[in-house]
Amino acid sequence: MLETLKEQVCQANLDLVSAGLVTLTWGNVSGLSDDRRHVVIKPSGVAYDAMRPEHMVVVDLKSGERVEGDLKPSSDTATHLLLYRAWPGVGGITHTHSPKATAFAQARRELPCYGTTHADHFSGTVPVARALTQEEIETAYEANTGHVILERFEGLDPIAIPAVLVASHAPFAWGKSAAESVKNAIALEACAAMAIDSLTLSPSLGPVEDYLLQKHYNRKHGPGAYYGQGKPH
Amino acid sequence: MLETLKEQVCQANLDLVSAGLVTLTWGNVSGLSDDRRHVVIKPSGVAYDAMRPEHMVVVDLKSGERVEGDLKPSSDTATHLLLYRAWPGVGGITHTHSPKATAFAQARRELPCYGTTHADHFSGTVPVARALTQEEIETAYEANTGHVILERFEGLDPIAIPAVLVASHAPFAWGKSAAESVKNAIALEACAAMAIDSLTLSPSLGPVEDYLLQKHYNRKHGPGAYYGQGKPH
Amino acid sequence: MLETLKEQVCQANLDLVSAGLVTLTWGNVSGLSDDRRHVVIKPSGVAYDAMRPEHMVVVDLKSGERVEGDLKPSSDTATHLLLYRAWPGVGGITHTHSPKATAFAQARRELPCYGTTHADHFSGTVPVARALTQEEIETAYEANTGHVILERFEGLDPIAIPAVLVASHAPFAWGKSAAESVKNAIALEACAAMAIDSLTLSPSLGPVEDYLLQKHYNRKHGPGAYYGQGKPH
Amino acid sequence: MLETLKEQVCQANLDLVSAGLVTLTWGNVSGLSDDRRHVVIKPSGVAYDAMRPEHMVVVDLKSGERVEGDLKPSSDTATHLLLYRAWPGVGGITHTHSPKATAFAQARRELPCYGTTHADHFSGTVPVARALTQEEIETAYEANTGHVILERFEGLDPIAIPAVLVASHAPFAWGKSAAESVKNAIALEACAAMAIDSLTLSPSLGPVEDYLLQKHYNRKHGPGAYYGQGKPH
Repeated sequence: MLETLKEQVCQANLDLVSAGLVTLTWGNVSGLSDDRRHVVIKPSGVAYDAMRPEHMVVVDLKSGERVEGDLKPSSDTATHLLLYRAWPGVGGITHTHSPKATAFAQARRELPCYGTTHADHFSGTVPVARALTQEEIETAYEANTGHVILERFEGLDPIAIPAVLVASHAPFAWGKSAAESVKNAIALEACAAMAIDSLTLSPSLGPVEDYLLQKHYNRKHGPGAYYGQGKPH
Repeated sequence: MLETLKEQVCQANLDLVSAGLVTLTWGNVSGLSDDRRHVVIKPSGVAYDAMRPEHMVVVDLKSGERVEGDLKPSSDTATHLLLYRAWPGVGGITHTHSPKATAFAQARRELPCYGTTHADHFSGTVPVARALTQEEIETAYEANTGHVILERFEGLDPIAIPAVLVASHAPFAWGKSAAESVKNAIALEACAAMAIDSLTLSPSLGPVEDYLLQKHYNRKHGPGAYYGQGKPH
Repeated sequence: MLETLKEQVCQANLDLVSAGLVTLTWGNVSGLSDDRRHVVIKPSGVAYDAMRPEHMVVVDLKSGERVEGDLKPSSDTATHLLLYRAWPGVGGITHTHSPKATAFAQARRELPCYGTTHADHFSGTVPVARALTQEEIETAYEANTGHVILERFEGLDPIAIPAVLVASHAPFAWGKSAAESVKNAIALEACAAMAIDSLTLSPSLGPVEDYLLQKHYNRKHGPGAYYGQGKPH
Repeated sequence: MLETLKEQVCQANLDLVSAGLVTLTWGNVSGLSDDRRHVVIKPSGVAYDAMRPEHMVVVDLKSGERVEGDLKPSSDTATHLLLYRAWPGVGGITHTHSPKATAFAQARRELPCYGTTHADHFSGTVPVARALTQEEIETAYEANTGHVILERFEGLDPIAIPAVLVASHAPFAWGKSAAESVKNAIALEACAAMAIDSLTLSPSLGPVEDYLLQKHYNRKHGPGAYYGQGKPH
């Protein structure tokens, strides 16, 4: 079942490696079926060099049960499921430990918009989800990681700000599809890298003016978007 | 039309990728025809791995209208056109979000000449073009990006200083040809990277003496240039 | 003798290069035979591009004598032997001068757990072994390097914290096998890189809460580990 | 003439590229003939991807005249010649603008020995040659670059410290052969990179104890050297 989605999710996982965002097996991408009933996700702790579409694991969105695949799904599956259930527009999720975004997550610093590169992908500050309590960690850790992300996005639009930094952990990014979530993970890492250098050059740097942020974001994503070839992205 | 220029511009865009200056589709190179009537430029938001010369878009320099090509030209085309119209010696323009130069642009810090690497390519400080006003952003944003670059170069020689950092945005570089503009973009990124480390090692570092700057610049670019094999560069 | 182990150790040395942890010939990996009587180790100062399993050197664990191989074993062999003799659970050792971990070793700063990436591999701070005295350096330098590592691990579990930073020198990492020791060396380098950036963003950053550290470490390594496919790692 | 040396020098130039030390055409390697009468050096400003042994230029050590080759020799040839004439043990010279070593040169900070990686290649601090005066720059610039290097090495042993940082410019490294000079250039860049991070972690870091420095240097280079396979390096 879901052969096309398995191919897309497998490719998205490999694209994450090509983009240099993965060390060892740290990272996983999932995609949601069109009927929003099943999630296809990378198997847990499997090496990338032999990964093929048939290794992808199919999980039922509602129950969280594996419905196809011989391998165990990513240990972060519960986090992915919670976000899909809560956010209608999201069809793909990427989790990485990409180094510069993770540095922000470890420092528990949010990532403000310091320039148009950021504004092209994120319509505002990429927020930090709070550290989990001891109880949250010891019971249903991965689901609770999803809960603190949802808690942090109360009042925020996850479509407009498609990434989060989980405190003391690492980033999650998402998008309309698995491929889009990988692009947002790549953009996040690039923006985090630039931000560290910008802060070295100007330690008290503040975010860009809101009108510049909105202009660039809407150039690519708004109703009058004119970047690209008009294909859905 | 302009088949050779299309090949050169396509190759220049791919060279930008090989040099590691491009993330996702952030970056575009254009070239001007010998009669200075047409600009050949990368299509907007197209992936690099399948890019071929026939995808390049031909735009009329004066009117800004597309005269050949099925794809939309880069969303930054208006910026390119303004610079070509204003600067007679320029035949190629490169726009990137290369990380270290963009860090300077985001920090709104100009890039002084800290050594001979810089002096080999830029005859002085690479300046910062001011941030656009809200009105400039909301009306004809890309053209106004060109205007603030031209405003910043009043009294400066764009041939001698073939790059600029647009505040809160990213760098533009240029040269006699598309290929030369890519070389200057590569040099700018390398100089910005070195400058960040030099400033870490010596926070109050000032620019090199002007006679060292002039010597190195003229060794490569002056009337008595003796670097290279005497071929036009 | 030990053909399979030679292949594994050779491959582990090459994996170290693929992972970008090696400059020139700086780095060596060894593996212990199942009966814990022989160590297979990289030859000293040999280029990686022509390295094959038959170049690996077999050394007697007890006596330290070479028992097979035409080439001299790594100059760091004595350090490897001491650790194998002292630590029953260790079957592979990796020594590198990987840049970010070496920066910590040179600064003589231990590497605390700043996030889950670290906790996935190291159950606490990666410690610094003290600088050797002049006498220790001038007599049996490499063996004494092993002695200061063992001294530093008194009261620590080398299986739970499979790496050390030797002051003014560089890291050593270890694991159940040569391959596992390389993974730990890669994880150490990634954590050190992230730590430098995290400290730039938050200079007074402290380690994560112990319950988060334990959760992540045990998710991968504890008796109830549920990361990966349940294969031995 | 000198076909073997041309091959070695060409290969050494290409190795510099593989090692990631070259941007654009910034960098050149030369080698001295066994009779110390001729220098084989890279042509000036030529792209690396089509470089072959027959492009190498042969220059007379004494007169500095080109005696074979259609292309102009590197613009830095005069610097190379001065060092060969002054230093009997040197048979190869590498000049790069490698980013981290150049950052030290631009900051005019010498590179102390912060660990064994440095000590394995350089028997002490890598010094900074002073900035040239205006007159020195305007008359025989490249020869005067050689002169300030020689001036800085008065009382120092260039065999034991095979590299220098020229103020506001970039590094030169050397060795017994072209290949050895490239290795020293690679080691210098790696040590400079580590030093920047070590200083970030410990801003007041001082050099290692002299007995550690001497031990490591002599392990590889002293009369009782025991690193490697005993082949000349």
